[in-house]
Amino acid sequence: MTRKVAVFFSPDGRVAHVKRNTSLWEAAAQAGLGLKGTCGGAGTCKRCQVLVRDGPALEKGTGLPSGAGLVLACQTLAAGSVTVDIPQDSRLAEHKVLLGGEDVLTESDADLGRIYRLQPLCRKVRLTLAAPTPEGNMSDWSRLQAALRGETGCDTFRISLPDLRRLAETLRSGNWQVTATLVEAAGCADIVRLEPGHSAGPALGLAIDVGTTTVVVHLVDLETGLVLGKKGTYNKQARFGDDVITRIVYATEQENGLSQLQETVISVVNQLVTGLLAENGRHRRDVHLAVVAGNTTMIHLFLALPPAYIRLEPYIPLAGSPPPVRAAELGLAANPHAVILCLPAVASYVGGDIVAGALLSGIAQEQEVTLFIDIGTNGEMLLGNRDWLVAVACSAGPAFEGGGITFGMRAMQGAVERVAITPESYEVTVETIGGVRPLGLCGSGLIDCLAKLCAAGIINRAGQLQMDFATPRLRRGDDGPEFVLVWQEEAGGGKDIVLTGNDIKNLLRAKAAVYAGIRCLLKAAELEMEAVWKVLIAGGFGSHLNIRDAIAIGLLPDLPAEKFTFVGNAAVKGARLCLLSQEALSEAQALAKKITYLELSAGSDFMEEFVAALFLPHTDLSLFPSV
Amino acid sequence: MTRKVAVFFSPDGRVAHVKRNTSLWEAAAQAGLGLKGTCGGAGTCKRCQVLVRDGPALEKGTGLPSGAGLVLACQTLAAGSVTVDIPQDSRLAEHKVLLGGEDVLTESDADLGRIYRLQPLCRKVRLTLAAPTPEGNMSDWSRLQAALRGETGCDTFRISLPDLRRLAETLRSGNWQVTATLVEAAGCADIVRLEPGHSAGPALGLAIDVGTTTVVVHLVDLETGLVLGKKGTYNKQARFGDDVITRIVYATEQENGLSQLQETVISVVNQLVTGLLAENGRHRRDVHLAVVAGNTTMIHLFLALPPAYIRLEPYIPLAGSPPPVRAAELGLAANPHAVILCLPAVASYVGGDIVAGALLSGIAQEQEVTLFIDIGTNGEMLLGNRDWLVAVACSAGPAFEGGGITFGMRAMQGAVERVAITPESYEVTVETIGGVRPLGLCGSGLIDCLAKLCAAGIINRAGQLQMDFATPRLRRGDDGPEFVLVWQEEAGGGKDIVLTGNDIKNLLRAKAAVYAGIRCLLKAAELEMEAVWKVLIAGGFGSHLNIRDAIAIGLLPDLPAEKFTFVGNAAVKGARLCLLSQEALSEAQALAKKITYLELSAGSDFMEEFVAALFLPHTDLSLFPSV
Repeated sequence: MTRKVAVFFSPDGRVAHVKRNTSLWEAAAQAGLGLKGTCGGAGTCKRCQVLVRDGPALEKGTGLPSGAGLVLACQTLAAGSVTVDIPQDSRLAEHKVLLGGEDVLTESDADLGRIYRLQPLCRKVRLTLAAPTPEGNMSDWSRLQAALRGETGCDTFRISLPDLRRLAETLRSGNWQVTATLVEAAGCADIVRLEPGHSAGPALGLAIDVGTTTVVVHLVDLETGLVLGKKGTYNKQARFGDDVITRIVYATEQENGLSQLQETVISVVNQLVTGLLAENGRHRRDVHLAVVAGNTTMIHLFLALPPAYIRLEPYIPLAGSPPPVRAAELGLAANPHAVILCLPAVASYVGGDIVAGALLSGIAQEQEVTLFIDIGTNGEMLLGNRDWLVAVACSAGPAFEGGGITFGMRAMQGAVERVAITPESYEVTVETIGGVRPLGLCGSGLIDCLAKLCAAGIINRAGQLQMDFATPRLRRGDDGPEFVLVWQEEAGGGKDIVLTGNDIKNLLRAKAAVYAGIRCLLKAAELEMEAVWKVLIAGGFGSHLNIRDAIAIGLLPDLPAEKFTFVGNAAVKGARLCLLSQEALSEAQALAKKITYLELSAGSDFMEEFVAALFLPHTDLSLFPSV
Repeated sequence: MTRKVAVFFSPDGRVAHVKRNTSLWEAAAQAGLGLKGTCGGAGTCKRCQVLVRDGPALEKGTGLPSGAGLVLACQTLAAGSVTVDIPQDSRLAEHKVLLGGEDVLTESDADLGRIYRLQPLCRKVRLTLAAPTPEGNMSDWSRLQAALRGETGCDTFRISLPDLRRLAETLRSGNWQVTATLVEAAGCADIVRLEPGHSAGPALGLAIDVGTTTVVVHLVDLETGLVLGKKGTYNKQARFGDDVITRIVYATEQENGLSQLQETVISVVNQLVTGLLAENGRHRRDVHLAVVAGNTTMIHLFLALPPAYIRLEPYIPLAGSPPPVRAAELGLAANPHAVILCLPAVASYVGGDIVAGALLSGIAQEQEVTLFIDIGTNGEMLLGNRDWLVAVACSAGPAFEGGGITFGMRAMQGAVERVAITPESYEVTVETIGGVRPLGLCGSGLIDCLAKLCAAGIINRAGQLQMDFATPRLRRGDDGPEFVLVWQEEAGGGKDIVLTGNDIKNLLRAKAAVYAGIRCLLKAAELEMEAVWKVLIAGGFGSHLNIRDAIAIGLLPDLPAEKFTFVGNAAVKGARLCLLSQEALSEAQALAKKITYLELSAGSDFMEEFVAALFLPHTDLSLFPSV
């Protein structure tokens, strides 16, 4: 029989009761303490370091007692009750970003609701039926349907058996007044709720953006179209891996991996939804519709659809346009009958989030050519106008989100976002989010740093650190050459903050992938860069980005600054459009079909472009005249 | 705490473990021993007599020890463990009728399948999909839908989330061959099952007739249209009351009454279905569609829709045309996703069984006027042709099924079905079903008996026994005047079999109600009786009926014998038509809307006609020239 052991976490004072020989990583997750990690518990990313203070801990694999000092939580098992310290460095921070300054939660809504008529898929219909008479003796169900036909364009109505069973009492207790909440689709309506009398209760909807890194929910009143509240947080699936590939592997290869991933994202969404409902004094039973945008893998995990073939050639999703499901089927915090719609994807690596963004930005309505860029853990790019649309995806890797970079971190308090280097003295000054002591570098800081190092000549165009420069900041560390950005005296973490040669290689690969993708798009469309009329930058990363720096390192094309626009979290706003307008939803569905997906791994163009883009800013300097 | 007590039943050797002070009636039901009863346990019909041989039994209501001798099971509580004898008289017999001679199970199928094309709502589609390629990289779900669109006229497909979750493996394990079982409706198809490869398994369907008294199931191969087997039995709901009104009261007023009634009928259907499947070596997972015919109340109880308002003015069903449900929602022995369709009703007392009968008999296609009569516990009559159809219902009462008649019984072994009376000597000879000693009279025997008593002058035209006749068979019993039909020496039950004055009154009321209904129909259509071209007699009762006797007592109109046809169990055959032909199903749905329901209680015509028909054969002898 397996005995349970207790794992105590300090200084949190939390405890997890787990089976003997459970990893400390799982125990921490169970105690609600997220640990950093990008390798899905494989022991390779070395982010989840903890200190075992007391009790028997074993090394996974060998079964030997774990060593003194910091150990990897994912590689250490609790052989009995143990006490564990989690350093600040190893903790997955929460909330901070999204409640901060210019982020997804503060974007303007000016671009919403201008074009589309407020006509949500879900609405409450308040009916007054004629009471039955000997002459008018149709059944209750026929009477209800006849009245609904008069109020809607629908001919067929579906009702759950439990609601049907209550129908006679519902109609009579409301004295033949009744309120039906309908979700309409293609001439057929689902009665998702039936209340006696004329219910004053609202019809609420959710726009949900399930990102690989963050999850954002908007709570919307479907009758007025008003946004009642917005909340966002990290996607706690990160503990199973930072990128979609690691999560697909986890879902496919671990026992119950898929359900773990699904339960995690559902609980993240539910936490946001219940928070929004509580803050607005609303009830989950009034939530009748949700529209979900996410990349193809995230939608698979959200619905618990096995994602295995997304990652295997020829990269086939189980469902690109999944059928609607009910809240109860997912355990979502809403009326159990609520209808959950996932926006359709274009392909395995161009998901409904990109479709939502394309919808929101109106690309498909313009005569001029727009380039839409969403750089997150993956980079997705879309090019086109009202006549044609082509999309590509490239695995930029998690570098711009801090992954694979020694002192990389997400854009949160303590992250370096601006870097300046004095030309002669090579003195460095940095600005951090929140103005506190620096802890590491976020995406915009990394881009800025790379641009400034290059400008100062500390790295050459191939990204190599020039070790002959006369500055103590250039040195050889454990991982080879490195540049000290912040000395430990000024750093928040008590260690020198460095950028290593490997970090720079990772950054180069990431930026090269994005730029090569853009080039492939243009080549496919047989267009020059100058033909691009507008560049839209979406995603949480976008809003922190310095355009000049991004051009300087060759991440973004060398176009005039006025051509660039940040659209913020386009996915959640596009989902909200679809939540509020049947027309927008139809358009999103049409868009997904209209967009041509260009598979980069299928041709050799991409590889050529990628290699050419591994220089700063590029091998072909004529592409970057302004740099 | 309530202790359980044991109730032993002899000679069956069965035992029920029940809560203390449970009635013996409920205990018997729990032990699987059906007792007779028509009052729903109210203690008024006095059919459920049992003998307490041992142990403490209390009288319900008073709590006093129950008396010696026979007691009513429904009025006697088991205060401790008791042993109970159930006399043969009190037992609900099973199976016998329906496995006998000319009954619903042996009717000819010649009238089926002539007109309608075999095109069931449910079919298996065997597909061979193209394997995905880098160019053909649509999702699995899109690939399946595209192939299904090519094979069907449907554009939208629904799939359950569990089936969707298995889709990637289903397609790949079948090497891109897959078999989808579809249930189509209005341009939209439900994928009720998905199997890898080209499945050779059949698509099976059920035609179900849920009658107040009997339940019949046909197991059908939907691909060939062949009937694999037929089974019927009594509806065990009878223990809650013989007629629909008693059952509605039970469902409405007893705690869990509705679920008890539903579970009972579902278990009866399941018993038939599992028997049919076992005999044919088939599996319930292959049953994908069922079409159910029943009167409006039976359908309510089958779906557990509260039937309360069927019985209250202005007699409103909850649903006349209930939406399709899934087998799993009812607990029906079929594939959990199987679609269950209930045929639409016309009104509270003209149900889908009558619609099925009308469909089957093709009334709505004839130029000439047909009269369709279904006499069961209720009498339902339909008159019309291809231009118009009018229906009425009258509560004939259970007399023709043996209810409310001292020695009434159902048409089973030992039931008197023919009676002859010698003119001078008033000697009586009887014929019984099975040729055994008589136990009582079934419907046809009662009609015959009444006709012969009237012909012999033993009763007058008002139905009164003429006590001055010189025969010992006429005597005064406990309930007033009675006629001894069989002396106890010849009877199977060891008692004189008599027909009392009250029995005759009940029979007169029953036949008067049916005839008055027919007259009202004709009056509404402004037709004379002679305008009726054909009379169709449906229902189990019909096939035992002697037409001449039925005319002689004024139950059926005085028309030439060749105008009468027995159609047997039209309900189950009509349901089978709908199971096998989408066209037939659409026609049934159209029929239900086309038939005008004439509410007899609403006008005074019926009462006048009823009173006039309380004579033998009628007050107005000109209506019965041949008698």
